[in-house]
Amino acid sequence: MTGFATVAAFEAALGALPAIDPDAAAAARARQARLTKPAGSLGRLEDIAVFLAGWQGRALPAIDRARVAIFAGNHGVTAHGVSAFPPEVTVQMVANFERGGAAINALAGAAGLELAVVPLDLDRPTADFTIAPAMDAYECLAALSAGAAVVEPGLDLLVLGEMGIGNSTAAAALCARGFGGSAADWVGPGTGVDDAGIARKRVVVDRAIAFHAAAPLTPFETLRRVGGREIAAIAGAVLAARMARVPVILDGFICCSAVAPLAAMTGAITDHCLAGHCSAEPGHRRLLDRLGLDPLLALGMRLGEGSGAAVATAIVRAALAAHGGMATFAEAGVSDAG
Amino acid sequence: MTGFATVAAFEAALGALPAIDPDAAAAARARQARLTKPAGSLGRLEDIAVFLAGWQGRALPAIDRARVAIFAGNHGVTAHGVSAFPPEVTVQMVANFERGGAAINALAGAAGLELAVVPLDLDRPTADFTIAPAMDAYECLAALSAGAAVVEPGLDLLVLGEMGIGNSTAAAALCARGFGGSAADWVGPGTGVDDAGIARKRVVVDRAIAFHAAAPLTPFETLRRVGGREIAAIAGAVLAARMARVPVILDGFICCSAVAPLAAMTGAITDHCLAGHCSAEPGHRRLLDRLGLDPLLALGMRLGEGSGAAVATAIVRAALAAHGGMATFAEAGVSDAG
Repeated sequence: MTGFATVAAFEAALGALPAIDPDAAAAARARQARLTKPAGSLGRLEDIAVFLAGWQGRALPAIDRARVAIFAGNHGVTAHGVSAFPPEVTVQMVANFERGGAAINALAGAAGLELAVVPLDLDRPTADFTIAPAMDAYECLAALSAGAAVVEPGLDLLVLGEMGIGNSTAAAALCARGFGGSAADWVGPGTGVDDAGIARKRVVVDRAIAFHAAAPLTPFETLRRVGGREIAAIAGAVLAARMARVPVILDGFICCSAVAPLAAMTGAITDHCLAGHCSAEPGHRRLLDRLGLDPLLALGMRLGEGSGAAVATAIVRAALAAHGGMATFAEAGVSDAG
Repeated sequence: MTGFATVAAFEAALGALPAIDPDAAAAARARQARLTKPAGSLGRLEDIAVFLAGWQGRALPAIDRARVAIFAGNHGVTAHGVSAFPPEVTVQMVANFERGGAAINALAGAAGLELAVVPLDLDRPTADFTIAPAMDAYECLAALSAGAAVVEPGLDLLVLGEMGIGNSTAAAALCARGFGGSAADWVGPGTGVDDAGIARKRVVVDRAIAFHAAAPLTPFETLRRVGGREIAAIAGAVLAARMARVPVILDGFICCSAVAPLAAMTGAITDHCLAGHCSAEPGHRRLLDRLGLDPLLALGMRLGEGSGAAVATAIVRAALAAHGGMATFAEAGVSDAG
């Protein structure tokens, strides 16, 4: 879609979220009850099929075209030594994505996902958000719109991910501003900083929260002030997908943190989202609870890049394979429960 | 493989379990450390790749040929009203498997698994094990051997499942005999019996345990006395796969219960096994703990047929895709952690 030209357009979209097609969802639920298995025995696979039916508006949902979009951004806050990796790794990893050597390339291939890599002004990091807003309003709208742009017509499923050295610090700040709590509740090791690094991240997050304390607690202001370009892009993609009724699989802590400011105002924003996994980053479980999302996987992953969500895509495909491919009791001549 | 002609042959195999190839596993672990990601950030996907490397004996394991084998059997214990479904459903579901209409057909297709359906004397249910051994020694050896027969040369992965009305009652008896505890610890709703049905199952299991209490607590005697043909076949398949160093994905409560008598004597029997999922059947979590297995998925599934294990196959495939497909730091020109 075309994106968000103004803050008012972004807020209007967030205020007018479409809902599922209840008839399609009900038809899918009724079909599940007729398939040759004990009622409910496919567990969450049944719920996923009904979820996709509702959002795709058809009793037999399908995933013909699915995309994983990876947004990348750089962060001024890396000046405080908040990451185990130097900031130039962001651009190096984008090159790795483009050459096909990263985890997400392999996992997207295994999951049948087309990969869209969206680097966002990597040569121009966001401002250090302990002393200024990370972005001005124009920059934030541009990032939101870059996210919206990946929601092309004809997508059946959108998987979201990110890359950005320093962005688990931004994610912790977004969670703290969105849902409250101190830095200690939301800061973790990210790519693998040691205890001293975690202590630095906590100081940075607490300083950022204090610096922006007087600013309006709107989704846009929170994204702009303590987010990053790749994070705002994910928020834009989630919102644009909702407007187009495209179901979304969210990835780990940073990906989910992009939704936190929106969800703090409008809890229903995650209704079209699945949580692909629960990452090893400690704040993720708490964030998922706040977002009302039950993760599909918990494999101790903590890579980002959409990696966990890409793996979870296979669960969604399995759900649709069973939903669409199984025979009913009547078709198969199988006796139902007595 | 050719199977187990005598009880002694079965016991000899269980007493001489091969181990992983430590060099292949070490090479795979070393490769993981060089791939373009923070160390350990793919979580269990890394462990799975190393596990497969060890059992397949190559640093770059692959799954070119993978099979899901579904064993089906009928149970004399159904006379006690222990299932929500009539016993004729076993043969009806086997026909459904053969026509392609069951959940496992759809899920095997999604997971790239060839399907082997192995019905075992469905017109001749096992004896009611509250008053007699379920099988004589010949029948049990034949079932073990039918399981071993699915381990064809050239398999890279074996996924196991079962179908058998009444078999969650046998599974509870196997767990209680193998690992102790009362019927209450191991009996659950199975395909969906009500509280009265659960109460009947508990009585049946307690009676069976008491009836066979004086019998030797060997794996073979436990399988023969309170198991079933499809359950003994799974035990035979697990053991034959181990002898051939073929990694296995186990399914739910009943599938795992087949390993319980073996594991009670020889804990290492599960070293080549992954638990595909934790089912909604309450005893499964306890059983997985006793088997030392951490399930890959927990999606509330409780269907059997190998369905959860088939879905988990996608996790294993993703692990190998990342392991084999990713670039190293050196290849990609990406800076490693500082």
